[in-house]
Amino acid sequence: MFDSADLEHKIDKLTYRHEVPHLREALLNVQVDLREAGRFPVVIVIAGVEGAGKSETVNLLNEWMDPRFIRTTAFDAPTDEESERPRMWRYWRALPPKGTVGILFGAWHTEPVISRVFKRISDSEFEKRIAEIQRFEQMLSDEGALVLKFWFHLTKKQQEHRLRSLEKKAATRWRVTKRDWKYFDKFDAFEKTAVQLTRQTSTAEAPWTVVAGADEAYRNLTVGRTILNAIRERLAEKPVVDRPDRTPLLPPVDHLTVLRALELDQPLTHEQYSEAREKWQGRLARLTRDAKFKKSGVVAVFEGNDAAGKGGAVRRLTQALDSRMYVGIPIAAPSEEERAQPYLWRFWRHVPRHGRVAIFDRSWYGRVLVERVEGFCDETSWMRAYGEINDFERELLESGLVVVKYWLAISKEEQLKRFHSREKTSFKRFKITKEDWRNRKKWDAYERAVCDMVDRTSTEYAPWTLVEANNKSYARIKVLRTMCKAIENRFDRM
Amino acid sequence: MFDSADLEHKIDKLTYRHEVPHLREALLNVQVDLREAGRFPVVIVIAGVEGAGKSETVNLLNEWMDPRFIRTTAFDAPTDEESERPRMWRYWRALPPKGTVGILFGAWHTEPVISRVFKRISDSEFEKRIAEIQRFEQMLSDEGALVLKFWFHLTKKQQEHRLRSLEKKAATRWRVTKRDWKYFDKFDAFEKTAVQLTRQTSTAEAPWTVVAGADEAYRNLTVGRTILNAIRERLAEKPVVDRPDRTPLLPPVDHLTVLRALELDQPLTHEQYSEAREKWQGRLARLTRDAKFKKSGVVAVFEGNDAAGKGGAVRRLTQALDSRMYVGIPIAAPSEEERAQPYLWRFWRHVPRHGRVAIFDRSWYGRVLVERVEGFCDETSWMRAYGEINDFERELLESGLVVVKYWLAISKEEQLKRFHSREKTSFKRFKITKEDWRNRKKWDAYERAVCDMVDRTSTEYAPWTLVEANNKSYARIKVLRTMCKAIENRFDRM
Repeated sequence: MFDSADLEHKIDKLTYRHEVPHLREALLNVQVDLREAGRFPVVIVIAGVEGAGKSETVNLLNEWMDPRFIRTTAFDAPTDEESERPRMWRYWRALPPKGTVGILFGAWHTEPVISRVFKRISDSEFEKRIAEIQRFEQMLSDEGALVLKFWFHLTKKQQEHRLRSLEKKAATRWRVTKRDWKYFDKFDAFEKTAVQLTRQTSTAEAPWTVVAGADEAYRNLTVGRTILNAIRERLAEKPVVDRPDRTPLLPPVDHLTVLRALELDQPLTHEQYSEAREKWQGRLARLTRDAKFKKSGVVAVFEGNDAAGKGGAVRRLTQALDSRMYVGIPIAAPSEEERAQPYLWRFWRHVPRHGRVAIFDRSWYGRVLVERVEGFCDETSWMRAYGEINDFERELLESGLVVVKYWLAISKEEQLKRFHSREKTSFKRFKITKEDWRNRKKWDAYERAVCDMVDRTSTEYAPWTLVEANNKSYARIKVLRTMCKAIENRFDRM
Repeated sequence: MFDSADLEHKIDKLTYRHEVPHLREALLNVQVDLREAGRFPVVIVIAGVEGAGKSETVNLLNEWMDPRFIRTTAFDAPTDEESERPRMWRYWRALPPKGTVGILFGAWHTEPVISRVFKRISDSEFEKRIAEIQRFEQMLSDEGALVLKFWFHLTKKQQEHRLRSLEKKAATRWRVTKRDWKYFDKFDAFEKTAVQLTRQTSTAEAPWTVVAGADEAYRNLTVGRTILNAIRERLAEKPVVDRPDRTPLLPPVDHLTVLRALELDQPLTHEQYSEAREKWQGRLARLTRDAKFKKSGVVAVFEGNDAAGKGGAVRRLTQALDSRMYVGIPIAAPSEEERAQPYLWRFWRHVPRHGRVAIFDRSWYGRVLVERVEGFCDETSWMRAYGEINDFERELLESGLVVVKYWLAISKEEQLKRFHSREKTSFKRFKITKEDWRNRKKWDAYERAVCDMVDRTSTEYAPWTLVEANNKSYARIKVLRTMCKAIENRFDRM
């Protein structure tokens, strides 16, 4: 990967001075075009060797371009906020919305390289991390982002020369730290690891540009022109109409589905309910106040048929929780800000810290439910969402969170009964809309979508709980009990 | 993944008898359309639990459809031929050409699952294998194949019931082996591993269809209809014109490239040459006759400017080898048979057994050289070829082979001299064509392509050797020496 960058690249001063005004003007212009088109974000990733001009280049880009539409984020050691959340959370936070440029400085590539060089992770673990990065960047591209990755490179000789010259002068001596020499001792290991990472994450959609960092003029022109050229080309492309890259799913030929197999009417007397409720609410209260919970947390997803009783089930849950500890997140249509980001972005922003409970009333599963059924997104997009969602939930799990997912199921008859009753009861009138009746007409399509969803996203680390909800009391207890069990399982593994 | 398939699916006899004639006719028709369109191959992968009806289904498909255009390949323990080659070699061999159907029975998914269940590989290793499968299937889809994957499923109860009923009857008792019960003991582990594999390799392009295997009618209709539907949909699609999923590469802004940095005129007297040649040819002869070489082998790639002396260098190499041991593979334009397959297929077929030397005169790098420069393939295709090639060569390496790659470089002036001399010498006239002159006009474009190629495919396990070839003698010695060193390195690691 670094063969070309190992050469002594150089641009003479005269050429540089002549080139720069043109490049700046062109960059400013293309930035306006980018904003006006508003079709895609530009994610610029800056990584590579210390002292190869990374921060200088970032500063320069901010100087050359209109900084109001650039957001630069530098990643160092994770903050408190960040270290209690999944690894990728802080990168999601920094993604630029459509029409703008985001510069990510030392992003998701840096930490795996360092961990591997200092043998904190094995080679297989490193390969696994690379595969995760590949999937993440694939998702970014699939969601339309233009991803430009720059790896700043110095040869070992250049690096040694740089450190020694800095040390020689009193004015710059402070810039060389012990850490710099410690890293220098591992130069070969760093380079080998970086080669593997950059090669394996270089794809047609998001190839690395390796920048020889020793000569300032060379590196500035390289980065500037690459950005200019890539944005221009992408702007010139017509949006693609159809991609032949999905294979349709069929429903079971006998129409027997996980939903139809449920016995929706489950008996539970009022007395049994009161007793069980007290028991499980109490247990949930204790679990969430346990010391172990401070290193964990819950993400709860509520999905279900309209009028299945999600609200009631959530309330029975929150009754057991300290109100400073949980947050309810009702998911409606995405806001303008959210539409300018990859699909999962609006859920990532609500990922809770440790020790908290986030309750999603509807969720990221909208992609494979309502968006699929209503045709709000194309088939390829919801088909690939299954994998993206599984990756997402796995990251939640790996950061210590418990993920519980409920589908509250009622029969078509029960729904009709509840719709009518809501229409009659004035204080429930707000709960029934024309849309509910419209959705009801698509009952079969939703059923199909739910079954595919359960098949493809019920994982050992985040299984779906199908809740038989014709009897509201039974449903509420099952929700409480499942959550307690999930937290206990998590504690057992701590 | 198996939630739906865990249900007791069933199709009654009457429905089945009524459905089958229609389905058969439709399948035969769609097969004709597939052949006439000749646009893509259909790769049907059959995997899953023993006794869930896999082979019955494969036989049935061959009965229902026109078997002349179906090729079924079952993979059991690798043959001698196969075990001396990279893991994926046997699957490449079995890929169907465009317009036809290939049924692959127990293909690349099966072995990793078994290895994981019996703890022959670690969890990280398993994840790495999954990532390899993802990339392989991605490549198949990118190359246009319709990939249909069926996982045949039985519940634990169903499996136990099946084994016990077979054992009860004298006529079928032989069908239950010790291995069946050994596998049954590991049922839960198998299922857990299979869930992970199928979920992580389920993509929008190639999702798994999980088939409940207990009821024959159900499983036949499921497989038949899924195949029918998928081929029909793909045939109905218009070919896609452009995909916005590649980012352009730029040449170095100072035009300094790895090629321009070479000192092409390297001195070597005739005497030095004779001496060196004897030395290195002798060493190569000994190395390739070493016992260790029987567990290894060489894949040598020769690329270079026209008239750079590839032929001469190859001859100096083969002079040292037993002629039964090596094979020269001149690569020209692909044949019709080869065009009907994924790009790398025509190279996979020439991967040598252990103990052999395969010498490619031009190679898979045509994709990122001539095909790129001449526009024979689109930008996205050659951009993703870098990754595909790296994966390919890594498989060669992992199977024990040594990969050496030579770019023979001469100056533009030296080429002109050689062209003229070839035109003058009658026995060399065949060596110079109009195409050579045409290529020469694209010198700069080729240079750019070569440099990108070196940057993106020179790996620690298969590095490029740039050979300064204005002096033919020097070039020949460098080729010999590099190959000896590469083999010695390999021996050191054995």
